[in-house]
Amino acid sequence: MICLDICSVIEKKKKGLALSGGEIDFFVKGYLDGSIQDCQASALLMAVCLKGMNEEETSALTFAIRNSGEIFDRSGISGIIADKHSTGGVGDKTSLIVAPTVASLGLKVFKMSGRGLGHTGGTADKLEAIEGFNVSLSRSEAEETVNRTGMCIITQNESFAPADKKLYALRDVTATVDSIPLIASSIMGKKLALGDDCIVLDVKAGSGAFMKNKDDAADLARLMVRAGKRAGRKITALITDMDKPLGNAIGNSLEVIEALDVLKGKGPGDLRKLSLELSAHMLRLAGYGDGDYCRRLAEDAIDSGKALEKFAETVEAQGGRKEMLFDVSLFPGAVVRHFVKAEKSGYIYHTDAEAYGNAAKVLGAGRQKLGDMIDLSAGITLKAKTGEFVEKGDIIAELHTSSNEKAEQAAVIIGSATRISDVRPDDCPLIIGKFGD
Amino acid sequence: MICLDICSVIEKKKKGLALSGGEIDFFVKGYLDGSIQDCQASALLMAVCLKGMNEEETSALTFAIRNSGEIFDRSGISGIIADKHSTGGVGDKTSLIVAPTVASLGLKVFKMSGRGLGHTGGTADKLEAIEGFNVSLSRSEAEETVNRTGMCIITQNESFAPADKKLYALRDVTATVDSIPLIASSIMGKKLALGDDCIVLDVKAGSGAFMKNKDDAADLARLMVRAGKRAGRKITALITDMDKPLGNAIGNSLEVIEALDVLKGKGPGDLRKLSLELSAHMLRLAGYGDGDYCRRLAEDAIDSGKALEKFAETVEAQGGRKEMLFDVSLFPGAVVRHFVKAEKSGYIYHTDAEAYGNAAKVLGAGRQKLGDMIDLSAGITLKAKTGEFVEKGDIIAELHTSSNEKAEQAAVIIGSATRISDVRPDDCPLIIGKFGD
Repeated sequence: MICLDICSVIEKKKKGLALSGGEIDFFVKGYLDGSIQDCQASALLMAVCLKGMNEEETSALTFAIRNSGEIFDRSGISGIIADKHSTGGVGDKTSLIVAPTVASLGLKVFKMSGRGLGHTGGTADKLEAIEGFNVSLSRSEAEETVNRTGMCIITQNESFAPADKKLYALRDVTATVDSIPLIASSIMGKKLALGDDCIVLDVKAGSGAFMKNKDDAADLARLMVRAGKRAGRKITALITDMDKPLGNAIGNSLEVIEALDVLKGKGPGDLRKLSLELSAHMLRLAGYGDGDYCRRLAEDAIDSGKALEKFAETVEAQGGRKEMLFDVSLFPGAVVRHFVKAEKSGYIYHTDAEAYGNAAKVLGAGRQKLGDMIDLSAGITLKAKTGEFVEKGDIIAELHTSSNEKAEQAAVIIGSATRISDVRPDDCPLIIGKFGD
Repeated sequence: MICLDICSVIEKKKKGLALSGGEIDFFVKGYLDGSIQDCQASALLMAVCLKGMNEEETSALTFAIRNSGEIFDRSGISGIIADKHSTGGVGDKTSLIVAPTVASLGLKVFKMSGRGLGHTGGTADKLEAIEGFNVSLSRSEAEETVNRTGMCIITQNESFAPADKKLYALRDVTATVDSIPLIASSIMGKKLALGDDCIVLDVKAGSGAFMKNKDDAADLARLMVRAGKRAGRKITALITDMDKPLGNAIGNSLEVIEALDVLKGKGPGDLRKLSLELSAHMLRLAGYGDGDYCRRLAEDAIDSGKALEKFAETVEAQGGRKEMLFDVSLFPGAVVRHFVKAEKSGYIYHTDAEAYGNAAKVLGAGRQKLGDMIDLSAGITLKAKTGEFVEKGDIIAELHTSSNEKAEQAAVIIGSATRISDVRPDDCPLIIGKFGD
């Protein structure tokens, strides 16, 4: 029997020493059952923020979070289950493209998605822009859908990783969110409770991401990949740029429409490229072949219309109005449209992703806190991307919202978040790095 | 109007930045009124433990704690009010000597004393070893006593510095006790709520003290003196040795008897020396003359019996049985006496003060937690002090307790806490340093 008390565990981390797996288990179990108080947990979390955790500790915390609730029983699903997970960015609608692409090629995608919060969006919210789309299927309905169509996207289930929910709520009010090991174990603790055989992580780096710089994103990617591998999963992490928004659309309906564009062989190049890359890695991890071959498979799935067909099948299976996919004028438009114009001529040097995300939130597309209502038609369409030349007075963004007041407020944010320069900015790679299998 | 939120205050300290006075006030007020949660306070306290606080921040926290409750109205007391305060040690009964010494010379001593906790004792507990001594006088009774006799010692009043009580209870369960700025502001926040014109701090350094080394003790002394001076008090801090117990007696009755010995012109040299030094500094701060002159005044007060007379007068005024002071056989003795003997011949090289304090607690003299009952007759009498030569089998300590089991347990602790060596240890100065006026 190990006799532990939480004060000595806190003291140990405060001194910068590594905690044992037993100590981390003791903490997570005790916090969940209430024998360890909020004030003790937050003191430990602050010590972790300031003293860090090594790879073993991060994996131990990940597993303790995973083991705090239900572990998904994958036996009800036949085939290889794969998923991609983004650490959160602005305009990131790749899930809407990647899932049907790989599902059309035979992988099973059983996605439990979060709601959007702050300046980043959530896949479940986006799908609700499609009339009738039901993200609250029961477990057995969802499994049946996956087995039949190859994919299903529902909201996150409370029974998985309850310790994460409790810890996150605490971190949110105690300024202990921005710790890389804590973020890694939160994401992977939830992820590993699910049944995926293959996991591709999209770790965003830049102003619109949790990780503002590439080194932090690389640390996060490394910690998450190691935890995934320790759990026996096939796993790869891509580190991708989030200094500027991904694609041109920000906001729920707007993003679904843009994802449909890509599925129809059109749409912005950066969005298509990243979606293909993520799909290719999922296929590669699942044993479909090498990277180049898998990329061609994904391209074919999109260019042949098979991926779009798969998406339509899923929309139908989850109660959504399929016609909207083929006639996007059926998506309700916003009442107020407003154009933001270039204040001078020059190259778009920088479009600050976080500020664009916050502007979209002001327009009604995002939540300040969970439970807030969102306006599905609200958002931003970028009309000039970083690197493009604009003349003074050219439209750089179109705002979609419900009132002139919101539009004006958002226009001010976007105006100051868009830097126009005489100099063309250097090209910044979309995919910065890769870890894992 | 300042608009603050606690998360940004925590975040600021987490980044190692100095908090403003407004931010510290906001924290202490909000924590006391419940608008800031325990979990937020403990996260901030942990950040303070790891990132520190500068002198301005420590003073601001001190004042916020002082201002959280009643500020003593000194107008009811005539004359110069003075006090000494020890940061807590083993065998430290100087208050019982210093208070009557300076009171016999005309200073007013209105002492609010804590109860003992852990391995250190409290003056209020010690005085209760005198039959009938009432440490719970009402405020007006206490003021009347001070004005009439020159001194009064009662227990700490809940109305002073309530923020300290709430913060200390939180620190106790979150491993955030050992931060020098937090300790400084806790002690001085309470002290400055009282009405003392002159304050002499006895900052203990060594194994039996909170501050294990001299540098930490010096930091603590400096922070406390600066806060005191900012509040307009006359203040001096002595840094004194607490690697070994002070005097020979540990435990409530035993310590009162030893203090009486000193007041009768006898007693251990170290106890007499420190008591005289503390008394002299109080007199000096009060304007009685220079250090040497004040030391002679204090010596005279003791050697003439005036200090003992003053103590007797106080005991009588607070309902205590005065005869016990002059016939210490009236103090009830412990049921079990047990001798600890030297395991080999040699010099007593080290007597670990913290271990001796813990042994005394085991014997029944101290508390594990507030509210625990204590055995007033229990304790330890040291029979050989550090530096003395003993033969194998010589008695090194006498234990006073209520059962053989406790005696045996304490004897083991003392055995391993007492190092006997062929080499005589270097003399370690009793008074290590001084800060302040």
